[in-house]
Amino acid sequence: MTTQEALSALSALEAELQAYGHALGCLSYDGETVAPRNSAPARGETMGFLSGIIHEKITSPKTGEILGALLSAGDALSLKDRRRAKVLKKNRDDLLIVPADEYMAYQQLMAEAMQVWHDAKLASDFAAYAPYLDKIIAYNRRFAARKDANKPAYDVLLDGYEEGLSHETLDPFFALLRKELTPVILEVAKRPRPDTAFLRQAYPIHLQRKFTDRLMQIMGIDRDDCAVGETEHPFTTGFNKHDVRITTHYHEDSVLSSLYSVVHEGGHALYELGVDDALQGTVLAGGSSMSIHESQSRFYENLIGRSRPFCEVLLPELKALFPEQMAGVDAETLYRAANLAEPSLVRTEADELTYSIHVMIRYELEKAMIGGDIQTADIPGAWNRMYKEYLGVDVPDDKRGCLQDSHWSFGAIGYFPSYALGSAYGVQMLERMEGDVDVWGAVRAGDLRPITAWLGEKIHRHGQLLTPAQLVENACGGPFDPNRYVSYLKKKYGELYNL
Amino acid sequence: MTTQEALSALSALEAELQAYGHALGCLSYDGETVAPRNSAPARGETMGFLSGIIHEKITSPKTGEILGALLSAGDALSLKDRRRAKVLKKNRDDLLIVPADEYMAYQQLMAEAMQVWHDAKLASDFAAYAPYLDKIIAYNRRFAARKDANKPAYDVLLDGYEEGLSHETLDPFFALLRKELTPVILEVAKRPRPDTAFLRQAYPIHLQRKFTDRLMQIMGIDRDDCAVGETEHPFTTGFNKHDVRITTHYHEDSVLSSLYSVVHEGGHALYELGVDDALQGTVLAGGSSMSIHESQSRFYENLIGRSRPFCEVLLPELKALFPEQMAGVDAETLYRAANLAEPSLVRTEADELTYSIHVMIRYELEKAMIGGDIQTADIPGAWNRMYKEYLGVDVPDDKRGCLQDSHWSFGAIGYFPSYALGSAYGVQMLERMEGDVDVWGAVRAGDLRPITAWLGEKIHRHGQLLTPAQLVENACGGPFDPNRYVSYLKKKYGELYNL
Repeated sequence: MTTQEALSALSALEAELQAYGHALGCLSYDGETVAPRNSAPARGETMGFLSGIIHEKITSPKTGEILGALLSAGDALSLKDRRRAKVLKKNRDDLLIVPADEYMAYQQLMAEAMQVWHDAKLASDFAAYAPYLDKIIAYNRRFAARKDANKPAYDVLLDGYEEGLSHETLDPFFALLRKELTPVILEVAKRPRPDTAFLRQAYPIHLQRKFTDRLMQIMGIDRDDCAVGETEHPFTTGFNKHDVRITTHYHEDSVLSSLYSVVHEGGHALYELGVDDALQGTVLAGGSSMSIHESQSRFYENLIGRSRPFCEVLLPELKALFPEQMAGVDAETLYRAANLAEPSLVRTEADELTYSIHVMIRYELEKAMIGGDIQTADIPGAWNRMYKEYLGVDVPDDKRGCLQDSHWSFGAIGYFPSYALGSAYGVQMLERMEGDVDVWGAVRAGDLRPITAWLGEKIHRHGQLLTPAQLVENACGGPFDPNRYVSYLKKKYGELYNL
Repeated sequence: MTTQEALSALSALEAELQAYGHALGCLSYDGETVAPRNSAPARGETMGFLSGIIHEKITSPKTGEILGALLSAGDALSLKDRRRAKVLKKNRDDLLIVPADEYMAYQQLMAEAMQVWHDAKLASDFAAYAPYLDKIIAYNRRFAARKDANKPAYDVLLDGYEEGLSHETLDPFFALLRKELTPVILEVAKRPRPDTAFLRQAYPIHLQRKFTDRLMQIMGIDRDDCAVGETEHPFTTGFNKHDVRITTHYHEDSVLSSLYSVVHEGGHALYELGVDDALQGTVLAGGSSMSIHESQSRFYENLIGRSRPFCEVLLPELKALFPEQMAGVDAETLYRAANLAEPSLVRTEADELTYSIHVMIRYELEKAMIGGDIQTADIPGAWNRMYKEYLGVDVPDDKRGCLQDSHWSFGAIGYFPSYALGSAYGVQMLERMEGDVDVWGAVRAGDLRPITAWLGEKIHRHGQLLTPAQLVENACGGPFDPNRYVSYLKKKYGELYNL
């Protein structure tokens, strides 16, 4: 096979993978947002079947030949084509360890687990969910062992979400956060709680939906390229750069919950929407690693969304839609309420200060689950003990405990650390961005496009053309330094709580 | 290939077709309801690709062998298996006339046409849509000619929606309706118009959504099996009997519009939901011909939904949600408003009396389009002339004229007559049902399940196991007689308007 033949064959394969991936993505999004409850088993079968075809295409000897021809072509290939071959080869190597039958069964298990988790969470019924989680853990341990039997299985899974990541990086990272942030958290808990009474009122959901429209405008997200759905646990998915979906969950008695989930998912969406046209349809389309993706979502949610200037922009908009509920509230009150820090139960609703501790608990638990140090049935107990030990809170039910997140149900074990890493990356990006862009002027003008343009240049447009490490270097202007994240949090919360 | 081998291979093929059909259905539903605008081109490509695979599977020589073995097995096959083979063979014969490339191009054209139609309708811009319609007409003429060059092309298309249907049945059918109903329509137009002032108020959409929930309960539709979406032009689709979707469109100033679209689409949904478990996953799952499907939707919408007893049930429910708007309205006022008969512009909003005239206009126009007697550019003019001639109304714009329906955009030319036929079938079914079931007692009790049970037994459960003609015979207890439909309409509107 000549290099030209291999490149043509690669493009043809990418087009097929694109089509199957699009169909799978659509089935999954539909299932998460609008599908009727009883549709899950048949959808699981269809998704399992389509996943099996993707598996077959990627692992086929033909694909092996294409990659062989490309990887031996050396400098005859452009940087982009070399990277396409490399990313596809990594996908292929990951799949080659799983026979097609097993892969299909795993995909179907996850589709069913997702539905069971939905119901189990609503009913706070861990026992109904446990057999599914048990199987997902067993699959992940087997997959990790096959991939690299010489490394701890959890390290292998971490590496799948962020190349090179292992407990050797994360143990000290979380130790630093514990050491530096715990005293702050304990001190904050003693200070007067900010006024949040105005939030504990009914904010009608049909008006919250209108507020989402306004947030999308402020973020500069074109609704013709990005839809907003509703689901239990908000997420973002993108089929291509003209078809991105964010989701949110409206709670009548918690207007900031959906507000900040929209800003968070909007950050993910802007990443997907900003990938270069030249990468569309290739395996390099879409965002890079999970932590880079989370660096974008948490950047908008916290560094921008929970800033004083953003709260100043939100205030009149909220007052226009909710005049009675927001009567007498000023921007400083909104800012302090949006940054209320206190040990709590639910990660997605946690403040910036305690957030990484929620992540750390999941990290420790996953290490034990995959390491075989805990039985599935014991997860709720271990979860609740750690929440008591590290955050001082009593978990009243599994709905607000170990059933709160959807991640394990779609097989994402080793993903959570990305949230803490991404949060930390973001602080370094912001510090650098402030040298180039009038960040706070843009926020005050209610138009985040200058901020997105900077991130687009440094991160978004590159898709998977650059590695996560290259992107961090690109946007942060130097290697990752978690101390900057710690300093940022200490300064912000020191000022907020007069520490 | 033995008969047993052929049956196993048939089941395996059906499972694959089911999976691809499910994915296509999901992409289509998503595109119609929640997808962002700019997603259309990529979705068109994916749907074209998947349709091509279905085409390839059905037309493959292997499928030919399977059908050969089954069709020669005679009485060794059960009735069900003979019918499976026969239905698949009909699908195959239809596809064999279209090469895979052309089929894929056609599927993609329709996906794009659908999006263009959406926008063209909003903008009342027929010129933007015309090139797409033009191509769709040309495809349909070619397909019809290849299928049977000896018959008028439009008859070939009609036969595709209802076996055996042709202009020989429809010309006299529509002539009867014109002859018998025109004097009634003209007479009604002279009578005092019922009071509909209470309808011309704002009925907030978030409350109309709540009313939809109540309608679904009354109809006995389990939301765990059937979701409700929102779209420009309401439709129903079903992926399997545990995953049916109806859609509606809410207009703040027209509460009855969404109400009756939900009851109409609910009728389609009940059909899909009622197909026997034993037929699931086979080519016999889902409803029979289009006219049988429309007989169900229009049965619930008009014969039940626009009856006096149903209006009596609706009244207190509407008053609970819309107390100010419905103040002073009694059941008789609601009944008369819901049955307002007058020549109008929009088919889906038309009353029972004039409805078939809307259908007849489309029938005449399609005959001319396919027969080559009219150019695409002349369709708006011809449409407007016929609306003036047959209904006496001036069409102010194409949005309310020839761009109002989505059917042509998804290639459905020859479908419209089903609506009129289905309406007529329904009357005969109701007359027979009244002998077996306390129809109006069920309606007054606000629980339509006894009615659905009767239709389920006679029609729904059979899926495509019986032919349309057998189902009509089954439910009507005799051959189709359009005079019954005419008598029903004359009696109902005679009483309403004191004729």
